[in-house]
Amino acid sequence: MQIGKLVVVGVGLIGASCALALRAAGAVREVVGIGRSQANLDDALARRIVDRAHRFDAAWAAELGDADIVLVAAPVGQFADLFGAIAPHLADGLVVTDAGSTKGDVVAAARAAFGARIARFVPGHPIAGGDRSGASNATVDLFEGRNVVLTPIAETSAEATARVAAMWAACGARVHTLTPDDHDRVFATISHLPHLAAFAFAAEVAARPDAAALLALAGSGFRDFTRIAASSPEMWRDIALANRVALRDEIARFRAALDGVDRYLAQGDAAALEALFARAAEARRRWDASLPFADDSA
Amino acid sequence: MQIGKLVVVGVGLIGASCALALRAAGAVREVVGIGRSQANLDDALARRIVDRAHRFDAAWAAELGDADIVLVAAPVGQFADLFGAIAPHLADGLVVTDAGSTKGDVVAAARAAFGARIARFVPGHPIAGGDRSGASNATVDLFEGRNVVLTPIAETSAEATARVAAMWAACGARVHTLTPDDHDRVFATISHLPHLAAFAFAAEVAARPDAAALLALAGSGFRDFTRIAASSPEMWRDIALANRVALRDEIARFRAALDGVDRYLAQGDAAALEALFARAAEARRRWDASLPFADDSA
Repeated sequence: MQIGKLVVVGVGLIGASCALALRAAGAVREVVGIGRSQANLDDALARRIVDRAHRFDAAWAAELGDADIVLVAAPVGQFADLFGAIAPHLADGLVVTDAGSTKGDVVAAARAAFGARIARFVPGHPIAGGDRSGASNATVDLFEGRNVVLTPIAETSAEATARVAAMWAACGARVHTLTPDDHDRVFATISHLPHLAAFAFAAEVAARPDAAALLALAGSGFRDFTRIAASSPEMWRDIALANRVALRDEIARFRAALDGVDRYLAQGDAAALEALFARAAEARRRWDASLPFADDSA
Repeated sequence: MQIGKLVVVGVGLIGASCALALRAAGAVREVVGIGRSQANLDDALARRIVDRAHRFDAAWAAELGDADIVLVAAPVGQFADLFGAIAPHLADGLVVTDAGSTKGDVVAAARAAFGARIARFVPGHPIAGGDRSGASNATVDLFEGRNVVLTPIAETSAEATARVAAMWAACGARVHTLTPDDHDRVFATISHLPHLAAFAFAAEVAARPDAAALLALAGSGFRDFTRIAASSPEMWRDIALANRVALRDEIARFRAALDGVDRYLAQGDAAALEALFARAAEARRRWDASLPFADDSA
């Protein structure tokens, strides 16, 4: 039994799926869930994802005394409060990790809350999810073949990082390590910019007087390009602001790329357009063929 | 039997799927396929999609004498030549239609080739497809619940338009009518701009020195946003140039929308970001719920 007691703070899709996967792997003895909504905690109890549950407003920190790992998988906007509640109980036997989509801001919040005990905190980002949410949508294989990025800092205990890496490996994930800065730059490119562009495009089209007529004829191209525009506005507000410096860089690069296409159109440059499209198609097809997960999964 | 003899010029995914659907509906007696590649025509013959096949370089126009409908479903770049071959045989009993993704340029090519007989040409655009191609990927239900837009002009015979509308309805499609100009503006927004943006983004990321490291961590957001960047470079070069005026307008609008997001980021305006994301998410979810076809189909 790799983990004796796991405390999952925020029993949503990510936290609940992690608990399910660890149970299925026989890698955890006891799971305690902490959450905001009683209905969601009841779902987690009914599905036996957690053995016990407490609301955020209860005295849940008492559970930390004999815990091995705390996984904070709530919205990042709540991290400062949650880290503050965990801090007094952050003994040497405990490791705290998180599932936030940005890492620079999370490290800053952890440093503020944990002070000299920051060595026990391992910043993490599991790359999985989708448009479903809550414990009722959790699945045992959500992390199978998916990437998890850990971003330990200079002070982070190597033993703590290894413990968190082993936890995600037991869920079937591939574990990578980056600095928090590199993480935030990488995800600004491959995740945050696409989300922002999809949001901006969908909002712009929806605001037109003829939006209904346009959308009635939209097909699979529109569907795929805008699918992520249905993501949580609250979560993406927090991600966009937390990573705004890198994200503004990405917007500038994307605009320059669009300007290039616009120039080719203005010049009627068929060869340049085809060459650009061919480079994109070749890269996209090669990437698709390299995926460890099926193309229809979240 | 609604159609006696159908001639499909370009027996690709669209042309072959149309023939399959009409056969399944008992709406056609005889199908003749005309194509560029013998291997693809052999596939169409083996699957009994066509009764007979001729290569583009054979004397195929002799098939038009007793045909009822000619569906031109080849790449738009070949339309001028194909229309030129059809023109001498364009008698009153025959209707010519097409499956091109742009309509202004197709109408101009048809006018040049057919002259005073333009009344027998019904411009059309079936909204279906995907990344598969060729007769071997054709399916009987490709058009089930999908939209087909016809763009008759002032000279178009109402009887010819009705005949083409009935053909697509027999395939299970919903038939709409727009002017060629409105069609090209609508599709610049909901299809051509997303394709251009996905191509531009994928090419820009693929050209970075750290592209391999970035792509190794890309997940479902990147996958959905860039799926259409794997589309045919040749086909999209033609579409982009044919519709460049409307498309440059769309690029300008999209850039302005991105500039708006960038301004909110610069100002750290959390409320404005969340409101924008919420408008996008609400519109996108409403559209998804309105779809007549399953979300996983092409």
